[in-house]
Amino acid sequence: MKIALAQINPTVGDFTGNLEKIVAASRRAADLGARLTVFSELVICGYPPADFLEKPSFLARCRTAVDELAAATAEMSTAVLAGVALPAEGETGKRAVNAAVLLDGGRLLLEQHKRLLPFYDVFDEQRYFANTRPQQVVELDGVRLAITICEDAWNDKGFWPRRLYTIDPVEELMRQRPEVHINLSSSPFWHSKRPIRREMLAAIARRHGVPVLMCNQVGGNDSLIFDGSSLALNGSGELIAQAASFEEDLVVVDLGSPASAPGNLPAAAAEENDTAAAYHALVLGTRDYVRKCGFRKVLVGLSGGIDSALVAAIAKDALGAENVMGVGMPSPYSSAGSIDDSRQLAANLGIRFELIGISGLFEEFTRTLEPLFAGMKPDTTEENLQSRIRGSLLMALSNKHGALVLTTGNKSEMAVGYCTLYGDMVGALAVIGDLVKTRVYAICRWLNRDCEVIPRAILEKPPSAELRPDQKDTDSLPPYEILDPILEAYVERYETPECIAKAYGFPLEIVEQVVRLVERSEYKRQQAAPILKVTAKSFGMGRRFPIAVKVQV
Amino acid sequence: MKIALAQINPTVGDFTGNLEKIVAASRRAADLGARLTVFSELVICGYPPADFLEKPSFLARCRTAVDELAAATAEMSTAVLAGVALPAEGETGKRAVNAAVLLDGGRLLLEQHKRLLPFYDVFDEQRYFANTRPQQVVELDGVRLAITICEDAWNDKGFWPRRLYTIDPVEELMRQRPEVHINLSSSPFWHSKRPIRREMLAAIARRHGVPVLMCNQVGGNDSLIFDGSSLALNGSGELIAQAASFEEDLVVVDLGSPASAPGNLPAAAAEENDTAAAYHALVLGTRDYVRKCGFRKVLVGLSGGIDSALVAAIAKDALGAENVMGVGMPSPYSSAGSIDDSRQLAANLGIRFELIGISGLFEEFTRTLEPLFAGMKPDTTEENLQSRIRGSLLMALSNKHGALVLTTGNKSEMAVGYCTLYGDMVGALAVIGDLVKTRVYAICRWLNRDCEVIPRAILEKPPSAELRPDQKDTDSLPPYEILDPILEAYVERYETPECIAKAYGFPLEIVEQVVRLVERSEYKRQQAAPILKVTAKSFGMGRRFPIAVKVQV
Repeated sequence: MKIALAQINPTVGDFTGNLEKIVAASRRAADLGARLTVFSELVICGYPPADFLEKPSFLARCRTAVDELAAATAEMSTAVLAGVALPAEGETGKRAVNAAVLLDGGRLLLEQHKRLLPFYDVFDEQRYFANTRPQQVVELDGVRLAITICEDAWNDKGFWPRRLYTIDPVEELMRQRPEVHINLSSSPFWHSKRPIRREMLAAIARRHGVPVLMCNQVGGNDSLIFDGSSLALNGSGELIAQAASFEEDLVVVDLGSPASAPGNLPAAAAEENDTAAAYHALVLGTRDYVRKCGFRKVLVGLSGGIDSALVAAIAKDALGAENVMGVGMPSPYSSAGSIDDSRQLAANLGIRFELIGISGLFEEFTRTLEPLFAGMKPDTTEENLQSRIRGSLLMALSNKHGALVLTTGNKSEMAVGYCTLYGDMVGALAVIGDLVKTRVYAICRWLNRDCEVIPRAILEKPPSAELRPDQKDTDSLPPYEILDPILEAYVERYETPECIAKAYGFPLEIVEQVVRLVERSEYKRQQAAPILKVTAKSFGMGRRFPIAVKVQV
Repeated sequence: MKIALAQINPTVGDFTGNLEKIVAASRRAADLGARLTVFSELVICGYPPADFLEKPSFLARCRTAVDELAAATAEMSTAVLAGVALPAEGETGKRAVNAAVLLDGGRLLLEQHKRLLPFYDVFDEQRYFANTRPQQVVELDGVRLAITICEDAWNDKGFWPRRLYTIDPVEELMRQRPEVHINLSSSPFWHSKRPIRREMLAAIARRHGVPVLMCNQVGGNDSLIFDGSSLALNGSGELIAQAASFEEDLVVVDLGSPASAPGNLPAAAAEENDTAAAYHALVLGTRDYVRKCGFRKVLVGLSGGIDSALVAAIAKDALGAENVMGVGMPSPYSSAGSIDDSRQLAANLGIRFELIGISGLFEEFTRTLEPLFAGMKPDTTEENLQSRIRGSLLMALSNKHGALVLTTGNKSEMAVGYCTLYGDMVGALAVIGDLVKTRVYAICRWLNRDCEVIPRAILEKPPSAELRPDQKDTDSLPPYEILDPILEAYVERYETPECIAKAYGFPLEIVEQVVRLVERSEYKRQQAAPILKVTAKSFGMGRRFPIAVKVQV
């Protein structure tokens, strides 16, 4: 039997558009001889629909969409297996199920429900979905299929040191002697997750001697980026097919042919490194956020620093140079180099560049506030003011020109609060808010691997906010080579200050200073733009801390 | 046996401070002859601790805090029953439990775990807590106690038309023939919840013929306000004791005395109406947010409108007139009345009032942007600019004076996006962000019941943003008498446009226009300050919608 993995990019709530894509991909798969076309988890309504799942009208629309899909594919030679939310049947508990429907010749052959509902990090599935009955193997043309949905396959006792669930739907299904295991996923990207996912599925394939086919969503949805990377493994856990990462794709697997041995895989299977993957993820996440919000154009404030340079480069690759405008907004404390470097960057990228001086506005603010500031010395107030003037200017351009502002802050800044609410934090999307500063540098060096995209001067100057004379980031913060490992240990892995100081050989007081800054800045992060997630633990929905606390470190 | 309900106001993470309060209240209860002192859910670590529960170091600190509490109360004549998170024991699943510990004479008599873990609206408990073993009745001096934690008691099949859980811990405990049922709660306030909670507990008391004692947390924690209102019901479901709402309290119940018949209750039992309750909740929520964040002073931008007037009145009652500063920031479009009315309001409240004209800044922005705006007509850009100038001025005052800015937007504005990101949306806390405009009016009228707090001119003028000549809210929006019912039906109850139009007799196109505005404004709400929750469904953590969607209404 030939099975197609149809990796498409749906939009949450766009039933019409998603169905069109599903029908078109099914038709293409049928033309290629596939007897079954597999789509990703919740592909019909888009993933993640979040609280739309609490609306009865949304679930009712899902049900009619399944009927429409059955009708539209009734005459095709391929069956269709696709994910969708549906109303739950029970009298108790949650009102929705996370389902896979198998449609063939216009009939519903199977409605199967996800059993393991993740509720950690960015996942809230127990908020929405009912726990449901065990899955059953289903036959198509006499071939016995075991169907699981994403997390259902993430509880293998041989693979994980600690399991999150007491049941294992894969084991239950394998007792029913299936010939192939198909997993529908919407598994968001974070760096180094792809090999884990592949090895985990390979371990399952090997343990049961049953091939695994996984179709994963591709595309950006707010903070989440789905990488696709759908794949097929034979019963020995060897890779026999691999779809592209970060773009739509259709891959046909012939389980009956000798080619189900690992053969010549397409180029996509040669996986790029983590740095390249993060860059491609951010390009996709930016493109989809802007377009799914109904926009084409973006604005980036260019400070002459490395963060805004990287964001501009990502924006250009995501949307095309003609849709990106860089805006330099020098203050009296901006170096001449900053403006030249920004201009050079814009030239390298081929994007429009505009310059708006803020000295007049800064003076007018100072004059206006003078009566209320009498006798008080300059402090961070004046630094924040410059930042907020820039924020207001960018938003005015955004309003007038119908272009989204991209926020340029990195994860190190967001972590310690080295950023200004309503100032440099303005914008629709925090493109690199999940990259610590040292990773920003690494990606920029990678971008420059063949030719200079980011001007060398930007890569080489010491980081500075340029909000007062001769300011350097290291005036307020430890060097990033020390700060970033502390942040990754504390923010991403929840290690204690004592453990971090010991593990890295850093002075405890520096670690504790950083931790205090992190804890004190939560209020800023809760008003931040959505951050594109590329690590296992990013700021945003996946990390939920209260503000009004007294943390005893 | 005499049992004390000790309703205290803990702070998340403040183990030292919380333990001090618990020990002091236990001592007072012992002095009043109580043999058992009951505290609220998670009182030792503060509620809700959110992702602190994922830190092993936090759970370890909880464990040592229990030991400290046992030692500190070892010599007292009262046992102590208190809520705390503790590390889970199992090899699979979540790593924490939501526990109640019973300490007597320095020994741990019982560690019991919450079984029903809410995961809807603002609750994420299945994100953190393990499902655990059934509860057991425990004896203290021969009296059989059934102990439940909050949600454990919220699944009564006789009370709820649809239940969320298949098990009922109360029924299981009642089979063990307890003499009293004690519920530790951290049950957040929303208007009209208190009678539901009381009637539900009364139904349970009656059905099993067992008295119910409920100790509820009091205090504000970010968006959530806990009203206290701890109570005792006899086995006939009659109220026999009632603690205060919105303040700390200690109530002693003598179950053995004839007074366990409903007698003369203290004044607190006479419950105020919904309008008054919402006001008191907002005062408490504001006070606790500001103080638990380590601040004393606040700033309120006074526009001359009713929203900022109400926020200033709440701030004054929460923090004292000497800690509130009102700031008027008139533009060329501000009416003379607006300034006079703000001044009058400040005088009524006894707060400081400052005036900062923004015309100079508006002109300077216009001049600065002219080259990029050439040939384009004025539009909402210029309106937003005025709002953002005001936001920047308030934040500058906040930075310089160490005072938090209180945001003044109401729920109607937040719903339809009739507010400016980084403009009037700036601030640390959105005090009235869960009150639709018509409720803002109702509360202001109630505030004025004895004497004029809100100047009559503010109550009587038609709502206007005053961002262009002769602007009125009704230029862009339906009148609030129409808008607010639509919003409550759509946002709070998830009704469809068709149902709403039919139920209220409004034209469908008006309802659909409002719904489109709500859907289009999600990006603004996700960057809003935390909103004090006073309805069953407020914007914020309890309502999670994606931004990049294509909603097909």
